[in-house]
Amino acid sequence: MNVTQFFRLSLGQWRSQRSGHDLMLGGFEDLRSTITIRALPANDRQVIELCRWYDVSVDLVFHPLEITATGDTKNREADEHYLLVPLPDPDNPNRGKMLRSRPEEGAIRNCIYRLQDDDTMTMVTEYDRATTEERIWFASPNLRLRVATVRTEDSGAIATTFSSEVRERSATLEQRHRVSTAVL
Amino acid sequence: MNVTQFFRLSLGQWRSQRSGHDLMLGGFEDLRSTITIRALPANDRQVIELCRWYDVSVDLVFHPLEITATGDTKNREADEHYLLVPLPDPDNPNRGKMLRSRPEEGAIRNCIYRLQDDDTMTMVTEYDRATTEERIWFASPNLRLRVATVRTEDSGAIATTFSSEVRERSATLEQRHRVSTAVL
Repeated sequence: MNVTQFFRLSLGQWRSQRSGHDLMLGGFEDLRSTITIRALPANDRQVIELCRWYDVSVDLVFHPLEITATGDTKNREADEHYLLVPLPDPDNPNRGKMLRSRPEEGAIRNCIYRLQDDDTMTMVTEYDRATTEERIWFASPNLRLRVATVRTEDSGAIATTFSSEVRERSATLEQRHRVSTAVL
Repeated sequence: MNVTQFFRLSLGQWRSQRSGHDLMLGGFEDLRSTITIRALPANDRQVIELCRWYDVSVDLVFHPLEITATGDTKNREADEHYLLVPLPDPDNPNRGKMLRSRPEEGAIRNCIYRLQDDDTMTMVTEYDRATTEERIWFASPNLRLRVATVRTEDSGAIATTFSSEVRERSATLEQRHRVSTAVL
C-alpha cells in the first residue's frame, strides 16, 4: 500500500468503539462514536487557513482530510472535528510532516507520519506537554484499528487508547477521486 | 530486536488492563489482571507433554514460556494459564511455528509467529471455528501493548481486544539466562 491508498481506504463513515486506559490509576473509559473522514479540495477555506497558520505554501498540500467524530448521546466528550494535511517528503511520500488542526491548535509543535512496510501508519504528535504516538492499520478493508500512547516528559507513558472502527458507509467516487488525483 | 530479545523483555510480572470490543453488538468488556511470564527449562514436564501432544521433538524447543494471568476478584474470567513454545524456522528464528497450550488445547489447529522489522510480534492462531491475529509490541521496555482480532469464516472480524501491560516486576537473572542460553 502507498500513502494514497491508505488515505483513500480511510474515507467514509465508521462506527467507532474506543477504550482508554489510564495507566497511572488503572481506570477505563469506553466511548462509542461515529467518525466521518472526508477528502477536502486543496482550495478549501479551512485548508488555506491551516496552511497560513503553519506558514506553509498551499502548493505543497496533498489530499487534506477532514475528520468529524460524533459521540452517542452519553458520550458528548467524544465529539471532535479536525483536519489532517499531509506534507510528504519529496523523496518518499510514505513519510512526511502532517499539519493537524485542533481546537487548541497552537499547542501542536510537530507531527510526523510514516507508512511502514507492513501497511501500518504511525503518527507522532508533539504537544507542549505531551507526545502522542499513534498506530493505525486495517485489519480488513472495513475494519480500521488505532492505538495511541500518550507520554509526558516527567512521567513516561501515562495513557493508551484503542479504537475499533467498523465501516458503515463507503466513500463516494467523487471523494475517492479527490485523493487519487492529488498524487498525479 | 531479535526474537530472543523480544521474549526476554516479555519475562516478568505485568499489571494488565484489557478492553474487549464486541464488533457485532458494540459491547465493551474491561478486565484487570496480573500476568506473569516465566521462562521454563526445556526439560519441564509441561513442555515435554506439549511436545508429545503436537508430536514434535523436544530437541527443537527454543525457550518455552509459561503465561499465568490472574484477574482481580471481580474478574475471575481473566484467569488463564498456558504455555508458548516457539519452534523457529531454521533459516530465520524471527519466524516460525508456536506450540500453544490451552484448556481446550485440541482445538488449536495451527499457530505461527513472526517478529517484524519494526519489532512488532505477530501471532496467528487458527482454532476450529475462528482465527485470532495478535500484534504485540513494546511502547517502552516497561509497557507492552497487545491487540487481537478474532475472525470467523462466516462473519469476518467479530471482536477485538486491546491490552496495556505495565511492568510490575522484572525477570530474575536466572530467568533471563534461560532465554539467552537457549539461542546458543
